[in-house]
Amino acid sequence: MTFTVAVSGASGYAGGEVLRLLAHHPEVTIGAITAHSNAGSRLGELQPHLRSLADRVLEDTTPEVLAGHDVVFLALPHGASAAVAAQLGPETLVIDAGADHRLVDPTAWEKFYGTPHAGSWPYGLPELPGHREALVGSKRIAVPGCYPTSAQLALAPGFSAGLLEPRDVVIVSASGTSGAGKSAKTHLLGSEVMGGMSPYGVGGSHRHTPEMEQGFSALAGEPVQVSFTPTLAPMPRGILTTATARLKPGVDAASVRAAWEDAYRDEPFVHVLPEGQWPHTKHVQGSNHAEMQLAVDPHAGRVIVTCVIDNLTKGTAGGAVQSMNIALGLPETLGLEIEGMAP
Amino acid sequence: MTFTVAVSGASGYAGGEVLRLLAHHPEVTIGAITAHSNAGSRLGELQPHLRSLADRVLEDTTPEVLAGHDVVFLALPHGASAAVAAQLGPETLVIDAGADHRLVDPTAWEKFYGTPHAGSWPYGLPELPGHREALVGSKRIAVPGCYPTSAQLALAPGFSAGLLEPRDVVIVSASGTSGAGKSAKTHLLGSEVMGGMSPYGVGGSHRHTPEMEQGFSALAGEPVQVSFTPTLAPMPRGILTTATARLKPGVDAASVRAAWEDAYRDEPFVHVLPEGQWPHTKHVQGSNHAEMQLAVDPHAGRVIVTCVIDNLTKGTAGGAVQSMNIALGLPETLGLEIEGMAP
Amino acid sequence: MTFTVAVSGASGYAGGEVLRLLAHHPEVTIGAITAHSNAGSRLGELQPHLRSLADRVLEDTTPEVLAGHDVVFLALPHGASAAVAAQLGPETLVIDAGADHRLVDPTAWEKFYGTPHAGSWPYGLPELPGHREALVGSKRIAVPGCYPTSAQLALAPGFSAGLLEPRDVVIVSASGTSGAGKSAKTHLLGSEVMGGMSPYGVGGSHRHTPEMEQGFSALAGEPVQVSFTPTLAPMPRGILTTATARLKPGVDAASVRAAWEDAYRDEPFVHVLPEGQWPHTKHVQGSNHAEMQLAVDPHAGRVIVTCVIDNLTKGTAGGAVQSMNIALGLPETLGLEIEGMAP
Amino acid sequence: MTFTVAVSGASGYAGGEVLRLLAHHPEVTIGAITAHSNAGSRLGELQPHLRSLADRVLEDTTPEVLAGHDVVFLALPHGASAAVAAQLGPETLVIDAGADHRLVDPTAWEKFYGTPHAGSWPYGLPELPGHREALVGSKRIAVPGCYPTSAQLALAPGFSAGLLEPRDVVIVSASGTSGAGKSAKTHLLGSEVMGGMSPYGVGGSHRHTPEMEQGFSALAGEPVQVSFTPTLAPMPRGILTTATARLKPGVDAASVRAAWEDAYRDEPFVHVLPEGQWPHTKHVQGSNHAEMQLAVDPHAGRVIVTCVIDNLTKGTAGGAVQSMNIALGLPETLGLEIEGMAP
Repeated sequence: MTFTVAVSGASGYAGGEVLRLLAHHPEVTIGAITAHSNAGSRLGELQPHLRSLADRVLEDTTPEVLAGHDVVFLALPHGASAAVAAQLGPETLVIDAGADHRLVDPTAWEKFYGTPHAGSWPYGLPELPGHREALVGSKRIAVPGCYPTSAQLALAPGFSAGLLEPRDVVIVSASGTSGAGKSAKTHLLGSEVMGGMSPYGVGGSHRHTPEMEQGFSALAGEPVQVSFTPTLAPMPRGILTTATARLKPGVDAASVRAAWEDAYRDEPFVHVLPEGQWPHTKHVQGSNHAEMQLAVDPHAGRVIVTCVIDNLTKGTAGGAVQSMNIALGLPETLGLEIEGMAP
Repeated sequence: MTFTVAVSGASGYAGGEVLRLLAHHPEVTIGAITAHSNAGSRLGELQPHLRSLADRVLEDTTPEVLAGHDVVFLALPHGASAAVAAQLGPETLVIDAGADHRLVDPTAWEKFYGTPHAGSWPYGLPELPGHREALVGSKRIAVPGCYPTSAQLALAPGFSAGLLEPRDVVIVSASGTSGAGKSAKTHLLGSEVMGGMSPYGVGGSHRHTPEMEQGFSALAGEPVQVSFTPTLAPMPRGILTTATARLKPGVDAASVRAAWEDAYRDEPFVHVLPEGQWPHTKHVQGSNHAEMQLAVDPHAGRVIVTCVIDNLTKGTAGGAVQSMNIALGLPETLGLEIEGMAP
Repeated sequence: MTFTVAVSGASGYAGGEVLRLLAHHPEVTIGAITAHSNAGSRLGELQPHLRSLADRVLEDTTPEVLAGHDVVFLALPHGASAAVAAQLGPETLVIDAGADHRLVDPTAWEKFYGTPHAGSWPYGLPELPGHREALVGSKRIAVPGCYPTSAQLALAPGFSAGLLEPRDVVIVSASGTSGAGKSAKTHLLGSEVMGGMSPYGVGGSHRHTPEMEQGFSALAGEPVQVSFTPTLAPMPRGILTTATARLKPGVDAASVRAAWEDAYRDEPFVHVLPEGQWPHTKHVQGSNHAEMQLAVDPHAGRVIVTCVIDNLTKGTAGGAVQSMNIALGLPETLGLEIEGMAP
Repeated sequence: MTFTVAVSGASGYAGGEVLRLLAHHPEVTIGAITAHSNAGSRLGELQPHLRSLADRVLEDTTPEVLAGHDVVFLALPHGASAAVAAQLGPETLVIDAGADHRLVDPTAWEKFYGTPHAGSWPYGLPELPGHREALVGSKRIAVPGCYPTSAQLALAPGFSAGLLEPRDVVIVSASGTSGAGKSAKTHLLGSEVMGGMSPYGVGGSHRHTPEMEQGFSALAGEPVQVSFTPTLAPMPRGILTTATARLKPGVDAASVRAAWEDAYRDEPFVHVLPEGQWPHTKHVQGSNHAEMQLAVDPHAGRVIVTCVIDNLTKGTAGGAVQSMNIALGLPETLGLEIEGMAP
């Protein structure tokens, strides 16, 4: 039997990537494809790479259109999904690629987003301890942010194993431009971004910071403080996260490596690379894999983990489909056995 | 009067950039242009962008060829410059773009470079306290590494003013590929680097780490430990450095900003951007400027400084010409009044 | 039942792409994976994006290793495949991604390749009239060159329908850098290619010229002369071909459009876009599709066709798998139902 | 003595490039810098790479603000410059980087631009026979389009020398994205353009087509018909034009090469490369040079010329400054002795 799935926000990058993955998912039938201002257009005009769906026509994002599907993906601007989700029945699996239901703490939500808290949903990062179990059978899933996906995968084993100090955690990420969305803005023009790099959201102001801290604190059992700096790289896709934390006294390199390898040994999508091999965002381009390498710097007393994902795949749509599989009781990797595309 | 200048290593990226800047320096006459395996070739074949020098023929890098110039630039592979420099007379201004004479501490040198220490020379980063004075009249100049240039400019004001803790300094840099040089290597092919990012030299193993620590420790008056991670970005030029350090107790945001603005107020090439404006490597592309923005993250108790330079200009050849100007008693900005090239 | 397939030349770009496609082909079991100097390495070191094959070890390219497979793909340097193929039995389906067996005319071969002609094989461009039929049951297939694939698809309908003059055919193509292969060469370094374009093989000297003329002449029933200019674009993948030919007297725009639409109406992988929509190489990135748009310029009396493919997929590995499917009697699209990857 | 120069349209790419060049022109004082919606902003916010002009404030583009300058550059949207120019006195040198005054033939103008013809001005491509003389002392200059600059330089010698047939001239150009301007449009986002190529304006519809034909026809003494196809390349700057024409009967390769070399031997900014060397857009990046290579294809009976310029420099602002120098009686190369910036 297959599940009918609706995708809203289908004209954007996240929605397009959800459709790319679902197009050949063996247990999925794509139902309504919806958008806002682009309702009425052929998908072939808006997402010309999705050849097999080119003749599908986008509908309006309304409760009536979304009703009657087993699964509804919401790839909407932040703040828009809570209202739509509230109109969908409890028997529908709603997967929110936006931020609205990620944060547990209403105070953190209101500080960073400035709107009333809509409540939190099971968090779609199954590789973190406890999360996979919480997703099974769930009817509501909050897809993690792209930066928090890479950052939490990078440092989770260390916090889980009690190896890392909760202060002076520093995370610097470089993201491809698709993370900034598809709306036309001057500073995102090709002429502006090709050939250069720039930071933004410096100083702890980026909204993904509390999401990282929430994840780390839960694992560490104590409040973790993160200094997070995002930067924009001249590439369409991919995130390279450099995450570094101080080791607790007496922790040595071998136990660090063992903790990471143990944590991910059986994970189908998260991989600690063999020593001597560096991750590269292109190696996971278009795939649902995360790859990382780590090193202990005894001089600085820190572990440095570099982790790559595709921000649109494992960082958004792939993670969402993976969580959907778990929630529906399907094999976790179904429809996601995709190699990276290189060169 | 003008100075005659020889440039060795002219077939590489650093040598080419030195020539690009010198070609229109009003007080310089370009004398010998030398290379190793490319001796005998027209410069137009090897550096076709240097149109005004296209018909110059490269000579061999020998003491005889280099003799008789007022200034000799050495843009040679690391480890090669000390031997060449030793054959040049004490009256010649020798400017070494390589690493050989940057580190004061022989132990640090030997640990990271594995060869006998050749001694240290005045360090060509005039914006650091004390360095400008040391360059005046000097006949030997060690050009800083490209990463250390951006990193030291980013955090120097904080260490000079005693605002920063000496531990848990974390520096993550993204560099354009020209920093890796012009030799043909598979992992540097366009097919491999376009569209992706990767780290390398993780865990404190990059040779620029002790150079950063040397600079910071001198300013702080105590040993500073740096965790440095370099990454390779899909762009030919430019470095974006994210440098972050813990603030000493009681240091507030206003005093941090004041320290940085005071430090660089009168510098012709280093600029703290107005609040709200982010640096971008393209804004300094081809120019000798460094631009930075900073933010205090009170939650994490850290200052984050993002600093951009062109790795080949301020990071190598521009800094070298600037230091040459100081050493020769010329106006410091001569030949370097170049706008960035954007878009 | 599934077919066992060996892939030789697996460390290069073409070989890697063959493996990427075969990895999830439902009727294929990947047998030997071979290379020359990289024999003995893990595939994960050489093609890290092929996660599902990471632990496979490359074997040497010998007749013994290749023996016993139903299908052998040869992704070898030009000139190397004929010798290997000669050692494989007549019952093995040999698919040569190299040039050795593309040209029918020994004189043309010797003029452009300078070696003895190895004979020609059925030509793996099933969309050209007559070719699909010739591939059914064939045990030897010559995979077309990447430029000739795009060029022939662009103009074939016009020559087939007798609409185009055989002289003054002009074809200008821009190719991604993977077309130049994975060997380390200075002019292919990322620093050299990012941000710029350059021509090469100007003046009819490129080896793909006779291949295009062979295809067009067969369709036109008279000798066709092509002026072909390839250029290198700053992107890893993709070919954009602009092909233009003079219309025969009296041919109007409507009959031109009808000829193209008729030719490709039932093709699963070749698409004439709706009027007003331009092809873009990213829309077919990683997919086996070719997309084109055309316009008649009545002032110049010419038709201009712009056609995009992914040079590694439809231009090499995808076309090869498509031909394999036909030869083996499998559904032509099996394993190739892949959307393009954008953005 | 120096000339005061006003620059209108200073927030766009063309205006920014004019300012980059004028900033260090030894005989120019930059007066008013004007814009439309950005009037009142600091230039440092809009063109952050122009460090030496960062604190200048943009004024409104009005006749009053522009009055009193020796020279006024108009870098305005097409159609806007004629009205502004009409309000400037006859003693002011007005240099129009827009299209309004390029075409001599009102019919061609109205067909391609759809508005009343504003008349033609002396054409700022001094390397074409007769044009340099017409610019001396002129008070009105039409700056050529970027594509026509590269295309006319590529084929002018052949038409001047009577070597080329007037029909079946085919020109295909790849342009960097800055040619499309700085307004925010979705299809020009970095996510869309990086890593891919696309055509536009196919079929003779691009407005630069009549401009090319005007130039060629004047040189040939007979009407020349051009098939022109522009494409968008994933780079910020640069044009690579492939221009090809049929040779008249009896014309041989030696006479072709001689014609081109003779035409440009004494030109400071246009260069026929030595045989065996290919042009590359990066070699002229940021410089006012045009470089070309040519080949005769005896099989196809055509000459193929590949020509590179920087669309913003020789293609717009550099050509404009060069023409200004001529008009004002200054040395033609003043302020333009800039090497290309590579890598």
